[in-house]
Amino acid sequence: MRYQEIINDICHGLYQDPPKGEVASYIPELAKVSPDHFGVAMVTQTGDYFASGDAEQRFSIQSIAKVLSLTLAYQHLDGKLWKRVGVEPSGTPFNSLVQLEREEGIPRNPFINAGAIVVCDVLIGLLKDPVNDLLKFVRSLSGNETINYNPVVAASERSEGYRNLALTNFIRSFGNIHNDLDDVLDLYFNLCSLEMNCQELAETFFFLANDGVTRAGKRILTRSQTKRINAIMLTCGFYDEAGDFAYRVGLPGKSGVGGGIVAIHPEEYVIAVWSPPLNPKGNSARGVAFLEAFTTLTASSIF
Amino acid sequence: MRYQEIINDICHGLYQDPPKGEVASYIPELAKVSPDHFGVAMVTQTGDYFASGDAEQRFSIQSIAKVLSLTLAYQHLDGKLWKRVGVEPSGTPFNSLVQLEREEGIPRNPFINAGAIVVCDVLIGLLKDPVNDLLKFVRSLSGNETINYNPVVAASERSEGYRNLALTNFIRSFGNIHNDLDDVLDLYFNLCSLEMNCQELAETFFFLANDGVTRAGKRILTRSQTKRINAIMLTCGFYDEAGDFAYRVGLPGKSGVGGGIVAIHPEEYVIAVWSPPLNPKGNSARGVAFLEAFTTLTASSIF
Amino acid sequence: MRYQEIINDICHGLYQDPPKGEVASYIPELAKVSPDHFGVAMVTQTGDYFASGDAEQRFSIQSIAKVLSLTLAYQHLDGKLWKRVGVEPSGTPFNSLVQLEREEGIPRNPFINAGAIVVCDVLIGLLKDPVNDLLKFVRSLSGNETINYNPVVAASERSEGYRNLALTNFIRSFGNIHNDLDDVLDLYFNLCSLEMNCQELAETFFFLANDGVTRAGKRILTRSQTKRINAIMLTCGFYDEAGDFAYRVGLPGKSGVGGGIVAIHPEEYVIAVWSPPLNPKGNSARGVAFLEAFTTLTASSIF
Amino acid sequence: MRYQEIINDICHGLYQDPPKGEVASYIPELAKVSPDHFGVAMVTQTGDYFASGDAEQRFSIQSIAKVLSLTLAYQHLDGKLWKRVGVEPSGTPFNSLVQLEREEGIPRNPFINAGAIVVCDVLIGLLKDPVNDLLKFVRSLSGNETINYNPVVAASERSEGYRNLALTNFIRSFGNIHNDLDDVLDLYFNLCSLEMNCQELAETFFFLANDGVTRAGKRILTRSQTKRINAIMLTCGFYDEAGDFAYRVGLPGKSGVGGGIVAIHPEEYVIAVWSPPLNPKGNSARGVAFLEAFTTLTASSIF
Repeated sequence: MRYQEIINDICHGLYQDPPKGEVASYIPELAKVSPDHFGVAMVTQTGDYFASGDAEQRFSIQSIAKVLSLTLAYQHLDGKLWKRVGVEPSGTPFNSLVQLEREEGIPRNPFINAGAIVVCDVLIGLLKDPVNDLLKFVRSLSGNETINYNPVVAASERSEGYRNLALTNFIRSFGNIHNDLDDVLDLYFNLCSLEMNCQELAETFFFLANDGVTRAGKRILTRSQTKRINAIMLTCGFYDEAGDFAYRVGLPGKSGVGGGIVAIHPEEYVIAVWSPPLNPKGNSARGVAFLEAFTTLTASSIF
Repeated sequence: MRYQEIINDICHGLYQDPPKGEVASYIPELAKVSPDHFGVAMVTQTGDYFASGDAEQRFSIQSIAKVLSLTLAYQHLDGKLWKRVGVEPSGTPFNSLVQLEREEGIPRNPFINAGAIVVCDVLIGLLKDPVNDLLKFVRSLSGNETINYNPVVAASERSEGYRNLALTNFIRSFGNIHNDLDDVLDLYFNLCSLEMNCQELAETFFFLANDGVTRAGKRILTRSQTKRINAIMLTCGFYDEAGDFAYRVGLPGKSGVGGGIVAIHPEEYVIAVWSPPLNPKGNSARGVAFLEAFTTLTASSIF
Repeated sequence: MRYQEIINDICHGLYQDPPKGEVASYIPELAKVSPDHFGVAMVTQTGDYFASGDAEQRFSIQSIAKVLSLTLAYQHLDGKLWKRVGVEPSGTPFNSLVQLEREEGIPRNPFINAGAIVVCDVLIGLLKDPVNDLLKFVRSLSGNETINYNPVVAASERSEGYRNLALTNFIRSFGNIHNDLDDVLDLYFNLCSLEMNCQELAETFFFLANDGVTRAGKRILTRSQTKRINAIMLTCGFYDEAGDFAYRVGLPGKSGVGGGIVAIHPEEYVIAVWSPPLNPKGNSARGVAFLEAFTTLTASSIF
Repeated sequence: MRYQEIINDICHGLYQDPPKGEVASYIPELAKVSPDHFGVAMVTQTGDYFASGDAEQRFSIQSIAKVLSLTLAYQHLDGKLWKRVGVEPSGTPFNSLVQLEREEGIPRNPFINAGAIVVCDVLIGLLKDPVNDLLKFVRSLSGNETINYNPVVAASERSEGYRNLALTNFIRSFGNIHNDLDDVLDLYFNLCSLEMNCQELAETFFFLANDGVTRAGKRILTRSQTKRINAIMLTCGFYDEAGDFAYRVGLPGKSGVGGGIVAIHPEEYVIAVWSPPLNPKGNSARGVAFLEAFTTLTASSIF
């Protein structure tokens, strides 16, 4: 199979060099992960599956999960969601607080922390049992009942989360947090603690490559809504490296500080990569290198 | 033909309401254009042509031309170009000077003024007769020898261009302008004064929908380079409305304050729209509305 | 007596015009104060007392109290205090969060909210019973056992204090808050709720005009420390109007959003003014006008 | 004489340690000055003169001269001047361009470059032969006909002055530069090139310690205007170290990157210090240390 060969060739090449960058260390659970892990998994729209390396070892998907909470909120609210969070790239991490101040508590997009926190607040207003209902939704996307939060990671995030407490109170001062702050952050820290392996990530995000329908045939979003989530991933999915990722890789995607990246080729495939060492912008160094090589060799970007 | 019907239907609907927004007024030549003009032209990769309204009346393409100067510089320098200008969205207009200061004279991307000025400086180092050579290049893209600069517009830009003089001197203070400042701005103001109609715009930008090859069959960029220019247009082509345009329309594109927008569906079509009144972000209000309706009705975004 | 005549003349003139500006309204206790109150009280270093208008009606001194908490912390720590808070004007309110981010959690000065919160954290580390000990200190400065916190104001500040919660968590994320956040903010909100009248304010701040010694003869600070507190008031005491106040009035001072201002002429006098309507920079409009006239007519600025 | 002894003692102590900091190097004329120079000169209001070290060797007074151009403009326009330039501290150098953008071309104060450039533009509108008339004014303040510009320094500043060209064009884009840009910058670069020794500096600035009257008995400003210039020096005279200088030294003053500082004790004395190595904020390290010791030992700050 051609895709499998290309994946193998790229992985073989990347294995030659030790991975560059540093593993995230702000909580112990991330710091102790080996930098040598490297996994790839891919599912095509027609259902073919390809994988390599540590594709079946779970890791902390961290910010990748922000796409899932966004999807659930968007499913309920459609365009009304955008009154509370924008769809523009944020420019730089440095600016996040300035922008919040200037834009009066409306975060720039749902993938910066401020935006993901507002999405959690939205979900609390929509769901009866937010933490469990969100988990059920994620399991229904993936068709996998074993996917779970990692309570140790969630607790660790909470204990280091002064910056997020600051952000949340700041947004609340502008009236854009409606629920109890502890509930909002509880959902947020659980969300960030979700664990999956590359295969599970590819299964879970399959609906974004399949016009909104999961592998099990369940419609999650309309075709138009699906395109819009992909568009937001392309412009905002990689912190201040979004432009560079679009330039190099040419696919919508989302990264997490656990070293995972998931990328979507609409109506073609979904691909997930995992390698913990991060480049200076906070994205998996080997993951970006793999995906750049992959879309170049398969000539398969969206552009 | 289906595309023509859809174009006609959307135009018919948009004609019902007077266009919202204000015509650009910072130079007299733009201010005196009627807000009622409205034109559309489209060329498919297979060569079919569709049009509506004022598709054959020329207007000032302004910043749309920044894609053309970028293409010429990229053709010569390939990836080395990115040492002097980035590929990241700028966040906000407000930030442009701050970012230049923090990022030490490297503009965020080639479509903000600072970046386009650096690209002009690059071209002066590459071309014997920059103003004429750039015009020849544009004419060769379009296959149309009558395309030209408007010297009145260029002179008017120059006489109001204190902000651009400030930017250029600021970049020069960081060592990222290598040539005579007057030469750089002369090229820049000429570039911004280029005039085309919608049909000519569609012909000129055809190579970006055709893997780098013009309608006349001339290769301008490699396939990979072409994808990369499209990626930069998607993330940076609409000032701080880039995310919203990706979300609504879902195509790479570039706007100008003359009211023009050109959008690319790679390997499908190129489409140009013109309506002078601008929305608060500086993009053609009716142009964006047309394109949103068009990609929705044709279900043809890249996502 | 000459001072009394000048005070009367200026007050008489100011009474002719209704006061400009708006009474602070972010908590109900401030919003319901009549805009017409106007009081002045002055004590010279030699002990003469002059007053006019509502000099004996108490009001919420708000940020004026930040000088008192600073004095207490400085008394204990001397120059070591400046490792945790700076002595530079902040430029603008807009910048407060940006500056905190760039300067890694060290607030610019002890009179912006962030700085006063850090001073409260310092006091919690120094005092056995911070809320009561601080009150005792204030009473000992004034020689007045009836001065007190207003628990309704403190509770109201707390219920609206999301911005301050945001600031405190943000500073804590940089390691510059050492104690329990609720304790810190409890002290801070109590501090802001202190009530005095103009006469009491003049008595309390007398030590700053008297080389560090209270009216009762108790030394609070050394002569050198006293000068330094006065210097910080001059450069930082009026938000982003500090330069203008120095220019117009020419005395060290501190304002509060309750409409009070206290100003010091070292080794000459202390003067307190109260008029609730605030100018756009958040300082008492009539208070500033009174003081400008007073130092002009008495030719008594420090410059 | 007591002042002479104190000066000698402090200088003796400071000579023990090599001066810290770096000599300004952005133009060759400043870079080649020996870091070991150290001079002090002081004139009391009653006419006594004290000096030490290199008090009679001239150096480039640089930004200190901005007080002189401000004085001349203020003499002509009085308060109307403040429509074109503010009197607030700027916070940080980083912010200068942001602030100019947010405050629409009105520089924060007359001592940041942007503000001094606007003052030069004002002077061009007031004077027949600005470069010569300003020099005459400076000579009349000092009573010294040999004071002059250094044309080599002025030319060198001009050749490196892209940042100032950027600032000037930026201000012009907001309409706050009214004259030919080359004329404005010519006056500005000449101003910065003025040379004096410590003795001459003390003589020149004597009027600010003497209620507006020069040593020769000529009134330059009213008493009230003099106080206001002193106030602006206190809040804005030392870039983003203004608060620290007020705190440590407690006198209005102005520094230049040539290593000079002049400080005023109104109605007491004027004192000038010179030592080329600069601290990280751009002020003479030994100069600040000297003045802190001097006002401490003489207990003579304004606070």
